[in-house]
Amino acid sequence: MIKVNVLGATGYIGSELVRLLYGHKEVELIRLVSESYKEASFDSIYRNFKGFQDKICTELDFDAVFSDVDLVFSCLPYGVLMENLTKERMEKVKIIDLGADYRFMNQAEYKEYYGMDHKSIELSSSFVYGLSEWNEEEIKKANYIANPGCFATNMELALLPLIKEGVLENEIIVDGKCGLSGSGRKLTLGTHFAEANESVKAYKIINHPHEFETRKAIEALGHKRIQLNFVPHILPMQRGMLITCYSRLKERLNEEQIRKIYQKYYAHKRFIQLLEQGMYVETRWVKNANMCHINFEIKEEGNQLIIVSAIDNLIKGGAGQAIQNMNLMFGYPEEMALEMVPTCL
Amino acid sequence: MIKVNVLGATGYIGSELVRLLYGHKEVELIRLVSESYKEASFDSIYRNFKGFQDKICTELDFDAVFSDVDLVFSCLPYGVLMENLTKERMEKVKIIDLGADYRFMNQAEYKEYYGMDHKSIELSSSFVYGLSEWNEEEIKKANYIANPGCFATNMELALLPLIKEGVLENEIIVDGKCGLSGSGRKLTLGTHFAEANESVKAYKIINHPHEFETRKAIEALGHKRIQLNFVPHILPMQRGMLITCYSRLKERLNEEQIRKIYQKYYAHKRFIQLLEQGMYVETRWVKNANMCHINFEIKEEGNQLIIVSAIDNLIKGGAGQAIQNMNLMFGYPEEMALEMVPTCL
Amino acid sequence: MIKVNVLGATGYIGSELVRLLYGHKEVELIRLVSESYKEASFDSIYRNFKGFQDKICTELDFDAVFSDVDLVFSCLPYGVLMENLTKERMEKVKIIDLGADYRFMNQAEYKEYYGMDHKSIELSSSFVYGLSEWNEEEIKKANYIANPGCFATNMELALLPLIKEGVLENEIIVDGKCGLSGSGRKLTLGTHFAEANESVKAYKIINHPHEFETRKAIEALGHKRIQLNFVPHILPMQRGMLITCYSRLKERLNEEQIRKIYQKYYAHKRFIQLLEQGMYVETRWVKNANMCHINFEIKEEGNQLIIVSAIDNLIKGGAGQAIQNMNLMFGYPEEMALEMVPTCL
Amino acid sequence: MIKVNVLGATGYIGSELVRLLYGHKEVELIRLVSESYKEASFDSIYRNFKGFQDKICTELDFDAVFSDVDLVFSCLPYGVLMENLTKERMEKVKIIDLGADYRFMNQAEYKEYYGMDHKSIELSSSFVYGLSEWNEEEIKKANYIANPGCFATNMELALLPLIKEGVLENEIIVDGKCGLSGSGRKLTLGTHFAEANESVKAYKIINHPHEFETRKAIEALGHKRIQLNFVPHILPMQRGMLITCYSRLKERLNEEQIRKIYQKYYAHKRFIQLLEQGMYVETRWVKNANMCHINFEIKEEGNQLIIVSAIDNLIKGGAGQAIQNMNLMFGYPEEMALEMVPTCL
Repeated sequence: MIKVNVLGATGYIGSELVRLLYGHKEVELIRLVSESYKEASFDSIYRNFKGFQDKICTELDFDAVFSDVDLVFSCLPYGVLMENLTKERMEKVKIIDLGADYRFMNQAEYKEYYGMDHKSIELSSSFVYGLSEWNEEEIKKANYIANPGCFATNMELALLPLIKEGVLENEIIVDGKCGLSGSGRKLTLGTHFAEANESVKAYKIINHPHEFETRKAIEALGHKRIQLNFVPHILPMQRGMLITCYSRLKERLNEEQIRKIYQKYYAHKRFIQLLEQGMYVETRWVKNANMCHINFEIKEEGNQLIIVSAIDNLIKGGAGQAIQNMNLMFGYPEEMALEMVPTCL
Repeated sequence: MIKVNVLGATGYIGSELVRLLYGHKEVELIRLVSESYKEASFDSIYRNFKGFQDKICTELDFDAVFSDVDLVFSCLPYGVLMENLTKERMEKVKIIDLGADYRFMNQAEYKEYYGMDHKSIELSSSFVYGLSEWNEEEIKKANYIANPGCFATNMELALLPLIKEGVLENEIIVDGKCGLSGSGRKLTLGTHFAEANESVKAYKIINHPHEFETRKAIEALGHKRIQLNFVPHILPMQRGMLITCYSRLKERLNEEQIRKIYQKYYAHKRFIQLLEQGMYVETRWVKNANMCHINFEIKEEGNQLIIVSAIDNLIKGGAGQAIQNMNLMFGYPEEMALEMVPTCL
Repeated sequence: MIKVNVLGATGYIGSELVRLLYGHKEVELIRLVSESYKEASFDSIYRNFKGFQDKICTELDFDAVFSDVDLVFSCLPYGVLMENLTKERMEKVKIIDLGADYRFMNQAEYKEYYGMDHKSIELSSSFVYGLSEWNEEEIKKANYIANPGCFATNMELALLPLIKEGVLENEIIVDGKCGLSGSGRKLTLGTHFAEANESVKAYKIINHPHEFETRKAIEALGHKRIQLNFVPHILPMQRGMLITCYSRLKERLNEEQIRKIYQKYYAHKRFIQLLEQGMYVETRWVKNANMCHINFEIKEEGNQLIIVSAIDNLIKGGAGQAIQNMNLMFGYPEEMALEMVPTCL
Repeated sequence: MIKVNVLGATGYIGSELVRLLYGHKEVELIRLVSESYKEASFDSIYRNFKGFQDKICTELDFDAVFSDVDLVFSCLPYGVLMENLTKERMEKVKIIDLGADYRFMNQAEYKEYYGMDHKSIELSSSFVYGLSEWNEEEIKKANYIANPGCFATNMELALLPLIKEGVLENEIIVDGKCGLSGSGRKLTLGTHFAEANESVKAYKIINHPHEFETRKAIEALGHKRIQLNFVPHILPMQRGMLITCYSRLKERLNEEQIRKIYQKYYAHKRFIQLLEQGMYVETRWVKNANMCHINFEIKEEGNQLIIVSAIDNLIKGGAGQAIQNMNLMFGYPEEMALEMVPTCL
């Protein structure tokens, strides 16, 4: 049994974390930290918790939250944790950061992608990248996890087996699609129902930080360099993320050969499913669960390989993977509290 | 540990039942029966089950399905079970029927509402009405349960406390709203995405069988007669059901007095939440869970009481309540496999 | 050819007005007034106007906007026009106010419903209520129109024929459902996509100003008093409004008799359609047009009459009716610029 | 004034055509032909036409429909027109075929893409490809038009200027996204609301006929060969289509240079808008109108050019472009009946 604090508990990823942790038998939630709603009961903000969780949200007092528990989950917006994290605080607790502050970047890169100076860049090296299926051994030994971004998780899971085996050409295009929970709870015109419903758009076409993160992760975990071209799109749905990857095979491989590569890496992975040939990947089949579905087709002309992969952006792309990492860190079964079947409807 | 068959496993309610039973530690699923998909693996139809449930669907052989298990859940369309159920078959298993064949009607009423002759009307009296919170003692002793309809469940939970206490005038109007999963998986123009999306309509304005069922249930459980006027509407959303009840208080009561009546019946009910004064009931707060949220407002002019109540039509309005009844029948904790927090997003 | 200013042009109703006026051959748009976007081009805010309307939005200078045109449409939020309108300004232009400031209320009522003091309540009597089909002769002679609210329009069109003929009991319940464009463009959590999508709720259960407005309009135009109980609901769709009216017939009338009453008032009304018996009213059939569809069913038990009526909340419930009123005021054909067929898809 | 028949009038493209033609002053609709609904009134099927169009649908009698009018629009599914069209029938009327039977294919290709033998392949050469902005002179002289497919229209409009100017590398990837009206009115599980809502999927990843059509059109109109890799996706929305094109510049060009190329071809095109730099293309800005919005960004790394383009799949991608072609063929102003501002909400 471990004690846990959640920072940023009233954001979408934070509230998912609280929801999933409710079903975890080895976790005792101590603090739900929310600057926006301090002193409100959690179930007055997220009324789905009526009858489940009526703890009062507390303010973001860094000294306090980093002292009285075994593990801190941080779902703070980028820029907040890096301003406040110190070696001293890190010594007292383990940390899983679901934010972007400690994922591969150096000072200049952080400035380029997030437009501000990183105040504790030297701490980055203490963080282990939490792509559960690919970094399991490191995660088990880690005290500090940088939990991957949602799009990055999806891209890495879809691409790493083939990249690691060296069968893909260097250049890969990824067209990403995500529902509106991926845009968070902050009010903007673009996420106002009447503006977002019944429409689709590409955004942040140039320089998305998940593109950078994915390139670095592939370099670190796949030991290859790639040239990645990633464009995200927003779709009028609640949750779910699909990526379509356009790549080229170095040499002709047939369907069965590709399939074997995926099986080599994923046959025993509980949360990754390679669908049967010809079966379309759809986000609804992974909704509300920690699953990733992958499939592909080979287009003989040009030796092209098209890979489609889907996750629930808030779960495998956030809160679910964070719990998976916690399970690994603390020696619990990897799937603990994550065995829910996707809801589909 | 009990053995269970699910008939009609590939309909929406059926697949929810299979999904929720996956998390139930005392249940072993034996047969997933589906006339439409016999010999297909369940996870090729409902691909959310990839990695969870790959049992092969079997045909609807009544002799077989009523012989080898402790409990049969029937999610068959109305008219199928009543054609095939016999005393002999009933002797071999317990039954929870999620269909409409054994809910209060006599021969003439069944004919009126469903347009066909009931072939085993005499068996109706063996079935106990499975409104879990209101018929708990009977359910515990029952071998055969008629699980309530989704709209009926919602209406009865919202109205029974006040009706039982005798504070409402006789005539009650209920305006019902339900997402499209409530219309089932059968293909029709009205449920085709491009026809159903971005639109709302009232349907079956006259003579909805749930209106009849609710009246009878209130007579049976609340020991009162009411005149009910129920109009259902279809909304462009996946799941969720909200009812707005327009009633009149016999004599002036204040907010606190009404609240006390609800608390009298529901304070200790795990799955029913009366929201704080002024807090709007919304279907998203009960999505994907077995919860019912209720609130009300008093309109002094005319002494009117407006009650709003929400459930997930597939769970508390179907598969969830069926499992709750199973738990009661077999002596398991009532909330077993039903403790999931609603997903809200 | 008349010159026209639109105040509040960048709200949803305002932008619809600009869009519909684009197709009106007798109107020259002079100013698009928007405090929020002054000095921005209209088509940089509403990019659907690219290639159609690139006028620069101007600030809300009351002296200016009330001086250089024949007609001012005001789509300002409640409270703004009443603060700034004067007899002097009214002498210079005609006005169609799509806001709520001059609809039937006295000082106390305005305070009760809108929580502020009305600064020019004495001007209310100069405004004619713009329910086009019911106040045509007055509108033709009017210089100042108070355009009806969206829910009020729908309720009045559905109920007035029967009320005027005196066939209904006094008490009427109306359950209203509206898409999210009805909540306007102001950012709120309740209208954030991820919070509003896939959910339905009742709101403002007590004391909705449209309930008041409808009662007063029915008194004024139908010469009857009614007791109205109106509860609005928000649905996850873009536009469209449906009301379900629960009423009781004073004496038994059959379907044909009710139908004749509607025909008496609406047979020659271009924008109102009584559907054939048994045909469901759906909002999609009136989407993006100035139409109102009505149908009803009689429930013999209790002599109940259930009326369902649908409009597009932004058009017949706002901008379309305003143009219809303008056409009447200026002697143009009533249907000018309003003859578009609903889009349905 | 011309007389017109619409074949396949009760499909989605057909009904849009009927709707838009209602506003066309030079067109008299003679027959609305629908095998599915013969002898039903059009407004009983599409109730948005109540008060606008109550013509009775007629059966598909090829002799009759090809004899009594100036122009036949065919919205029949592929395979029907090619079975029934003959030289004799063609001599009596002009034809705009919105189907796929006469677009570039030879016998073998038709068989490959549509799985059946083409019965009148020799007539293909009489058809002019109706991409209005690019084939205007040919269309003006044509008697028979093969109206482009929706995805093909979008791809060609986005790509042709740059391809014609020879600035792109040969290989182009297009990721297409379309709302569910693009899947037509035929009932399938994949288009059932509860299965399609809240989900996204790629489909027909290999060998989509629009990919073929686009390659051929670019060869014919742009005089270049390209290698195209097109994957379509279905999104949970009513209408609207967005494509994201991933291409590479042969040599470094800056934003202004690309912009000039588009302006060269489109500056005077009424229905095509190049958005300002940095402004996201969104389908809602072109909804319910004949517009195409285009924008692009250059990614210096790799010299990549990403183009995003949006149309309304039923209008510019179907019925609207067909009317535009009719206007060109019959010497009416190109924009006649097509000047509606997109609805956006």
